[in-house]
Amino acid sequence: MAVGDVSMPQMHAVKGVKIGSAEAYVRYQNRRDLVVFEFAKGSNVAGVFTQNAFCAAPVHISKAHLKITNPRYLVINTGNANAGTGKTGMANAEATCAKLAELADVSASEVLPFSTGVIGEQLPIERLVNGLQPALESLNENAWLEAATGIMTTDTTPKGASEQFEIDGVRYTMTGISKGAGMIRPNMATMLSYVATDAPISRELVQQLLNETVNVSFNRITVDGDTSTNDSCIFVATGQAGGAEITSPEDVRYSKVLEVLTRVMKRLAQLIVRDGEGATKFITVAVEGGENTQECCDIAYSIAHSPLVKTAIFASDPNWGRILAAIGYAGVPNLDVEKIQVWLDDVQICKDGGAAEDYTEEAGARVMAQTEMTIRVDLGRGQAKDTVYTCDLSYDYVKINADYRS
Amino acid sequence: MAVGDVSMPQMHAVKGVKIGSAEAYVRYQNRRDLVVFEFAKGSNVAGVFTQNAFCAAPVHISKAHLKITNPRYLVINTGNANAGTGKTGMANAEATCAKLAELADVSASEVLPFSTGVIGEQLPIERLVNGLQPALESLNENAWLEAATGIMTTDTTPKGASEQFEIDGVRYTMTGISKGAGMIRPNMATMLSYVATDAPISRELVQQLLNETVNVSFNRITVDGDTSTNDSCIFVATGQAGGAEITSPEDVRYSKVLEVLTRVMKRLAQLIVRDGEGATKFITVAVEGGENTQECCDIAYSIAHSPLVKTAIFASDPNWGRILAAIGYAGVPNLDVEKIQVWLDDVQICKDGGAAEDYTEEAGARVMAQTEMTIRVDLGRGQAKDTVYTCDLSYDYVKINADYRS
Repeated sequence: MAVGDVSMPQMHAVKGVKIGSAEAYVRYQNRRDLVVFEFAKGSNVAGVFTQNAFCAAPVHISKAHLKITNPRYLVINTGNANAGTGKTGMANAEATCAKLAELADVSASEVLPFSTGVIGEQLPIERLVNGLQPALESLNENAWLEAATGIMTTDTTPKGASEQFEIDGVRYTMTGISKGAGMIRPNMATMLSYVATDAPISRELVQQLLNETVNVSFNRITVDGDTSTNDSCIFVATGQAGGAEITSPEDVRYSKVLEVLTRVMKRLAQLIVRDGEGATKFITVAVEGGENTQECCDIAYSIAHSPLVKTAIFASDPNWGRILAAIGYAGVPNLDVEKIQVWLDDVQICKDGGAAEDYTEEAGARVMAQTEMTIRVDLGRGQAKDTVYTCDLSYDYVKINADYRS
Repeated sequence: MAVGDVSMPQMHAVKGVKIGSAEAYVRYQNRRDLVVFEFAKGSNVAGVFTQNAFCAAPVHISKAHLKITNPRYLVINTGNANAGTGKTGMANAEATCAKLAELADVSASEVLPFSTGVIGEQLPIERLVNGLQPALESLNENAWLEAATGIMTTDTTPKGASEQFEIDGVRYTMTGISKGAGMIRPNMATMLSYVATDAPISRELVQQLLNETVNVSFNRITVDGDTSTNDSCIFVATGQAGGAEITSPEDVRYSKVLEVLTRVMKRLAQLIVRDGEGATKFITVAVEGGENTQECCDIAYSIAHSPLVKTAIFASDPNWGRILAAIGYAGVPNLDVEKIQVWLDDVQICKDGGAAEDYTEEAGARVMAQTEMTIRVDLGRGQAKDTVYTCDLSYDYVKINADYRS
């Protein structure tokens, strides 16, 4: 059960983006497990990918293709990650691109492949390529929900965000989807996420917008601290809604797009945490008063990764000593604990490094019992701040991951 | 239930070490929760302590006292960690030393205090100091088992190691105890461990021996990755069995002591993992072929901390892709995955970065079903190696930590 409101909004079509899907029986039966995106000619595409050294074959190929073209197609399969699969895995990912290119009459380098699922098994490549033609035949503008559903693995709910905004009298759309529930600690990207707008933006700025927003969204979430081999996030601007191309970050229109994209990306990232494997609570860890952003981020992740903090929150137990311990072992040099304040929502639990005098177990337990809460830490040594989103650690996390594959 | 053989050996008395205990009702009822060590005059004492910035009041004071004296007494309470307790916590730890010093007619700086248990609550100092006199009255040489039992918290079994060895016709003893089951990822020390020998060793070398052996024992284990606020490890050489003092690491007797101490420390450290909260499997992660020890250690810990690897092992599921992913996100620069080999005991699961051709699920499952196994990784880029010990992640880990304090 996902935490809080994870409902799909109205998924507005993005001019210049068509989506098709098919049942390819990669692993799952009776569901669309193959998704194809088609972008109108002239679209600008940017991507960020996992920094896991064991990155999957499709990640290698997507990165290489992005360097030499502005891709026209994405092809995504679920059920098999095509990671740890050696040369055969590379050949299979290349064969997928080649077949789709042939059917769609583009070059293979204009296709980006993506895979998610079990690591270390070879793709059933024949079944996969047989699904490409039916997927292409189903291409249409109003299939974002089908795409969000098609890319799910252990997710319990499809994940989407969609907004419309106006610049100079033109109405633009920003729509995106994401997937992921376990092996979630993105490093420069996430499990899988695709966001598109029909606003006109230069390719350089599409990448810049993606980098800026990934760093406050997908790069600030964790479920279990395990960075996936397949994390990929794609942002595309088709320009099909019209208007002059945005080519400078000084352009006021850039700020407007950045604002909308930040909101969409944060929502998509937080949806992954809300649907984290076994999650029963959604937790915001906000660290402020640091000398620099990195140390705020380190401490926030130290708290967000601590199995002891996460099990205490699962149990609604305000065992705040575990939060202090996690702050203390984050590895931040010269930390003066006597300057540290910690709050659970509005309840101060730690004042100047020790228990706050007016703190009561009842007040702490009241916040801990909520399904959403903020752990706020003030380091008292500077102006920097950072925020990380995570969930608790429950019996069901163990159950899901002890049972997966079986 | 602890994993494998965790039985207490015959705990040989160490000449010059006496141990007393008492029921002080710090938190637990009807058990000895206060332990006092007395060392003969002339003993040389060394210690290593947690690097957690939120280190406990007794850690602050033990470190300060060790700098100015060769301590004669240790006093240890369980049930309350006296961490995150501010100035009152410091005053309570100092009062404990002062009272014991008065009763034993030594200076307060010759007493080292230790606490373990819940973080963030004040010690019931009156009950604690009232237990000191009965503890002193019970001092005797044959109470190592009582001490090992007295310092337990969530441990399910007392932990001890004891050996006798001969140098130049003199028989010496090396005996030690440890405790800890959760919040285990020692950084320069462990939860609590006390090791003593009656061999004559200079103070400088006592510290050197401790540093050398901690780095292959307590600094190479993890249960949940949470570094405690109270980790402390003490090694004392009383010299009471006779012989000329060992004053140089070139002395052949130094090598003999190092060999015995390494074995004792590794056993005490591994006992903590075998009794890790919820543990059902004991796992050795051995990484070789690295450019340097640090990268071997980083990869070993990355595997040992991965909740996905740990839940797969709990389920006896040879889902080895999770091991590859953990190697890949360890942050080791320029890792060439095509040179990487991985084995589960004698079964090669990954060859040159992909699935080993003759690997079968049956072979992997056979090893995964064992209660003890070694995950061996060869990075194929150098001669360095390192080894880390850990356990699996089970329902009971969540249960224990969601229920603790309740």
